[in-house]
Amino acid sequence: MVLRRRDTLLFETPPVIAAWAAAGGKKESEGPLASGFACLTQQADFSGEGCKNWEQAESLLQRKAADACLRKAGISKKEIDLAFAGDLQAQCTASNYTMRGLGMPFAGVYGACSTMAETLGLAACFAATGMARQVLAMTSSHFCAAERQFRTPLEYGAKRTPTAQWTATAAGACLLRGPGQQGVPVRSVTFGRVQDYQVRDINNMGAAMMPAAAATLLRYFTATHTAPTDFDAIFTGDLGEVGSALLREQMEKEGVPLPNHRDCGCLLYDTAAQNVQAGGSGAGCSAAVLCAHILPKLQTGAYRRVLFAATGALMSQTTFLQGESIPSIAHCVELGGGDRQ
Amino acid sequence: MVLRRRDTLLFETPPVIAAWAAAGGKKESEGPLASGFACLTQQADFSGEGCKNWEQAESLLQRKAADACLRKAGISKKEIDLAFAGDLQAQCTASNYTMRGLGMPFAGVYGACSTMAETLGLAACFAATGMARQVLAMTSSHFCAAERQFRTPLEYGAKRTPTAQWTATAAGACLLRGPGQQGVPVRSVTFGRVQDYQVRDINNMGAAMMPAAAATLLRYFTATHTAPTDFDAIFTGDLGEVGSALLREQMEKEGVPLPNHRDCGCLLYDTAAQNVQAGGSGAGCSAAVLCAHILPKLQTGAYRRVLFAATGALMSQTTFLQGESIPSIAHCVELGGGDRQ
Repeated sequence: MVLRRRDTLLFETPPVIAAWAAAGGKKESEGPLASGFACLTQQADFSGEGCKNWEQAESLLQRKAADACLRKAGISKKEIDLAFAGDLQAQCTASNYTMRGLGMPFAGVYGACSTMAETLGLAACFAATGMARQVLAMTSSHFCAAERQFRTPLEYGAKRTPTAQWTATAAGACLLRGPGQQGVPVRSVTFGRVQDYQVRDINNMGAAMMPAAAATLLRYFTATHTAPTDFDAIFTGDLGEVGSALLREQMEKEGVPLPNHRDCGCLLYDTAAQNVQAGGSGAGCSAAVLCAHILPKLQTGAYRRVLFAATGALMSQTTFLQGESIPSIAHCVELGGGDRQ
Repeated sequence: MVLRRRDTLLFETPPVIAAWAAAGGKKESEGPLASGFACLTQQADFSGEGCKNWEQAESLLQRKAADACLRKAGISKKEIDLAFAGDLQAQCTASNYTMRGLGMPFAGVYGACSTMAETLGLAACFAATGMARQVLAMTSSHFCAAERQFRTPLEYGAKRTPTAQWTATAAGACLLRGPGQQGVPVRSVTFGRVQDYQVRDINNMGAAMMPAAAATLLRYFTATHTAPTDFDAIFTGDLGEVGSALLREQMEKEGVPLPNHRDCGCLLYDTAAQNVQAGGSGAGCSAAVLCAHILPKLQTGAYRRVLFAATGALMSQTTFLQGESIPSIAHCVELGGGDRQ
């Protein structure tokens, strides 16, 4: 049974994330979460595996995450009822080409860097209601594909501003199953509303996305009569250092301080040492942090109950050049045990 | 209760499309379905309403379809629990900026020209299970925004091949409600699987998408033990003249001829007279044909039971230049009354 409280869908008998896997590249292998990845490569162009460009490489990375997830679950791709996937490439092609190889029923989604929470939320809804028995939720990003598409080709050697974030070369995949099965419970889903505080700086995504994270979290707390301290951690992704500081300041002003806030963009890399400016970003960043860090800690009991609120900046290279401000969105998924209040 | 038969979700107590609206531009106003549009403009750049570029104009067009749909339903935007929307612009920005103005909980989707069936299918699933009481499903496309993004700027005056299709300047919006309410029933949803028959001609989308239409329809008929003649019409969208001929030929070979096949790309315009080459296309094409033609006929009883199988070509301008073949997908939604067999 699914209850609706304002924007939040509460699963009385929660579906579960039965298996998960993260895949990443060289920089991710040098970061603090490396040990949590199911698959890491030192050559993220995958030229040794026949990839001719960054776009194909990203598709293969996503495929590796999917394959590792299915392996852990002990099932074949034929047993998946439905897959939700998306990515940052124009026309979501990383996912489209991955799904060409997987051949499952597929619904493509787009939520920029919030995509992992969106796919996870949709998959949880389908698993909770029995509309699909085994559902895949996944997403990816690739630094080199994203730089060329959104900024400049790598060969230009453009300087990055201190507020810029580093698009992760990473993918994450989760397998969801219906209530009563083994895995990490998904307790609720909150689909976000688009926010736009007129930030126009394409090199400051954290500031652009912060209002969306704040809005969705506030709506969630109000709807569920919970407080941040009811959770072991509240994850956003990917606000980076700049956006995270702004979020904590804003939530303080709203009277809902976040003492246990973590941001996926600040977790994937050692921000100070790895030259990633304000932190990680990209649809694969929060996906990888979810699969390499959050879910393992929920499985071992190190975390009991967390919020995963991934954020996305909804502009394009075209709207940016047209001088448009950057709208953003955040979807929130509640994970783990804990009594409903 | 939702039953799963292979890839098809059957709604025992079907949700309904309670209201709908199509919006279109000049060429659409000169086509055979003009009288079915809720909103038609002779100046689709909407410069008179403050739009500075084609991308903003497409967002406004989508907004006009949404507003007309809400007006017909007699509700305000605040009463919508969730909206599914998508479009062809890179990073789905037409929908993102429309949703910025609407401010509803929003899940962005991408299925290229299949997007209307995808949003409709997802919305039906949420309405059928009570996860959302009032759900908006919508999409759009704009000829001028699409030409610049996928082909060349209009100012180049490029010649079009006879197999090319004309991206509709159109949007469609549907409001879905749960079972037992007034409207056109949604009886089932079939999410498609990606097909790729190695078509590489960006000017022959119909041929690229035909295998997806055939695959989804065949899966639907097998799962539901139905035959094409159980339906008043089977709509695909948008295969155009070339893809439609190929589909009928292919289905004949499969032993499942389609005597009642119609294609949205062949319905929106007078193909011979309106200089649209092989017909219409774009995410707004099948959306507009759904809202301006199919749903009104289901409402009056002129159609009793139809299939709406929208098709999408899942490449991008980047993958095309990289020499990739064009994957495609088709999602199918069953509309109207009729006994389940």
